[in-house]
Amino acid sequence: MDFELIKQDPHCQARLGLIKTSRGEIRTPAFMPVGTQGSVKGLLPEQIRSLGADVILANTYHLYLRPGHKLIAALGGLHRFMNWPGPILTDSGGFQIYSLAALGRITEEGAFFQSHIDGSKHLLTPEKVVEIQEALESDIMMCLDECTAYPADRRKIEAAVARTSAWAKRCLQSRNNSGQALFGIIQGGFYPDLRKRASEEIAALGFDGYAIGGVSVGEPKQLMLDTIAQTAPLLPKDSPRYLMGVGTPEDIIEGVYHGIDMFDCAMPTRSARNGLLFTNEGKLVIRNARYREDSSPIDSACDCYTCQNYSRAYLRHLFIAGEILAMTLNTIHNLRYYMRLMEQIRGAIAEGRFSEFRSDFLRKRHPDDTNGSDRD
Amino acid sequence: MDFELIKQDPHCQARLGLIKTSRGEIRTPAFMPVGTQGSVKGLLPEQIRSLGADVILANTYHLYLRPGHKLIAALGGLHRFMNWPGPILTDSGGFQIYSLAALGRITEEGAFFQSHIDGSKHLLTPEKVVEIQEALESDIMMCLDECTAYPADRRKIEAAVARTSAWAKRCLQSRNNSGQALFGIIQGGFYPDLRKRASEEIAALGFDGYAIGGVSVGEPKQLMLDTIAQTAPLLPKDSPRYLMGVGTPEDIIEGVYHGIDMFDCAMPTRSARNGLLFTNEGKLVIRNARYREDSSPIDSACDCYTCQNYSRAYLRHLFIAGEILAMTLNTIHNLRYYMRLMEQIRGAIAEGRFSEFRSDFLRKRHPDDTNGSDRD
Repeated sequence: MDFELIKQDPHCQARLGLIKTSRGEIRTPAFMPVGTQGSVKGLLPEQIRSLGADVILANTYHLYLRPGHKLIAALGGLHRFMNWPGPILTDSGGFQIYSLAALGRITEEGAFFQSHIDGSKHLLTPEKVVEIQEALESDIMMCLDECTAYPADRRKIEAAVARTSAWAKRCLQSRNNSGQALFGIIQGGFYPDLRKRASEEIAALGFDGYAIGGVSVGEPKQLMLDTIAQTAPLLPKDSPRYLMGVGTPEDIIEGVYHGIDMFDCAMPTRSARNGLLFTNEGKLVIRNARYREDSSPIDSACDCYTCQNYSRAYLRHLFIAGEILAMTLNTIHNLRYYMRLMEQIRGAIAEGRFSEFRSDFLRKRHPDDTNGSDRD
Repeated sequence: MDFELIKQDPHCQARLGLIKTSRGEIRTPAFMPVGTQGSVKGLLPEQIRSLGADVILANTYHLYLRPGHKLIAALGGLHRFMNWPGPILTDSGGFQIYSLAALGRITEEGAFFQSHIDGSKHLLTPEKVVEIQEALESDIMMCLDECTAYPADRRKIEAAVARTSAWAKRCLQSRNNSGQALFGIIQGGFYPDLRKRASEEIAALGFDGYAIGGVSVGEPKQLMLDTIAQTAPLLPKDSPRYLMGVGTPEDIIEGVYHGIDMFDCAMPTRSARNGLLFTNEGKLVIRNARYREDSSPIDSACDCYTCQNYSRAYLRHLFIAGEILAMTLNTIHNLRYYMRLMEQIRGAIAEGRFSEFRSDFLRKRHPDDTNGSDRD
């Protein structure tokens, strides 16, 4: 994996870049649609690609539990399994163990937990997590990390930072020369000094990229933004920076402003399935009675297949009637909204007007109190 | 609407034809994918078309109740509403009143019933059913009929035949000069003389096409096939003949053999959503453990998108994991199976070898005890 920093905005931390992998290039800042179980819910790979996605995310925890990484490896790896030839980033499972699994305990060895599917018992170690991701053949692997809740005791967060650093070292050591990139993860809760310590420890180990984890865990929005603002500039400038599990369009713009290159979030896809649609005029709840006879598209400024061919009235009908096509059409729209946002962000950085773009975007939007995190 | 009889098989009743509508041609024998609520579940219109479908079916009863025919008319008709530019046949609602609605009572005036959605009370008359279908702007409308159960008292069926004939006359009289075709429906249960009487009465009224209704209502398979064999030849030769709500691949071949030109059935789409897949070697239950590591496609003889790109192991994983993409991929396969079957049937008739095709098909298949009817 190679990262080319194309342009650094002179007025803020925003940057334009290009990640080159053997399976294709990723234009940054990039948003990665979430394909938790080896499928971006409701979309064919060709549809995902046509929306403008360069890379998708898949979940190590989910695929390890079902159908199993050995099965996927035997069938030729995750790309072939799911018919997505482009780059895939796999997370490490750290966040899912924190959020989904019935937690046994975390020791220096690794994380003991029970499956959220069938209650079966498992141990994920740093070495195991690398082994799984190598079996999946993802293009970008993530280190196992220990995620902490909000709020959490400072000593607990300090211990999680130390453990995440120790595990990061073991991930690096256990990795084979597979050509897959490996990213380190920065923890540290909402203590600037712990984030700084984590950043220094992880950066000293030398990874292909660096991620900010442990945000979007229930904290107030401003605390998340402050942490991003403090932490992102501490990460090596010549490597991609990835903000895990974030967020709303506003969060993404703030992340880019502070120097983040990569994002993932289930928000556009999950919201779509729940009938919550993103538009240039704010969010739209498609089941609302006001759209009953509305012949206009979701967003007249949108170039997506759904907006080109279907009315709000039809989409409302499909949603209320429980038709699965509603999920597909809504997902196409929301993901295209996110992809266009990223195109606009990259265009603004390229033209040296990102700060202006950010101000305009934030000013014209209604205040958005929705928590920006939405992870599978 | 115009019907061209291209070829009559010399050895059986099978026939090759072409229905010409202002929205496109329908090659017969034709299978119509079911789009009950204005959506063929899980598929985009472009996908339906690419599978080889010339025409789809939509349900008058469902669309009348939700979102309402006036709403659809105000938005430019059903084709525009659902983004399907090709021919649409709408059924009359007679079967759904029989099978879905909480039945109030049927009088000479029409059918009083309660909505299966919200319990609201409605009256559908022959005139109203034509009005609804004219509002939907379907290319082929169906008369309101009275469907009877199996088994049913002969006097009850006799009364339903008389009522269906009286209603058919009123449908004809109330129809506007809209350019939409109108088909009559033959009832008569499983009494050959009543089917004959119904055929004569309906044919005497003069419709654009003729449908056999009131089969697939729980009767033994052989009784259905006998009824088709007896009734189809009684219908005018120069008009399309439509067997409503049927059926399995075997049923369709038998229907064609007896001179049927059009079919519809929810079986391929509904089975797909339940993980039951059609192949040249019989049916396949995708969730079966034997497919866990199976790298082969559903059917190696199939040219569909799903078979070209995905393994049984992946499809099994998606199905078990509850991914909605499973429904889309399975539906693409099953519908393509049906469409290829129709292509093979039409090819065999064109080449004068349909009887041979039928014998080969039925011989190589395991006996299939599944009831062929599966209607929304």
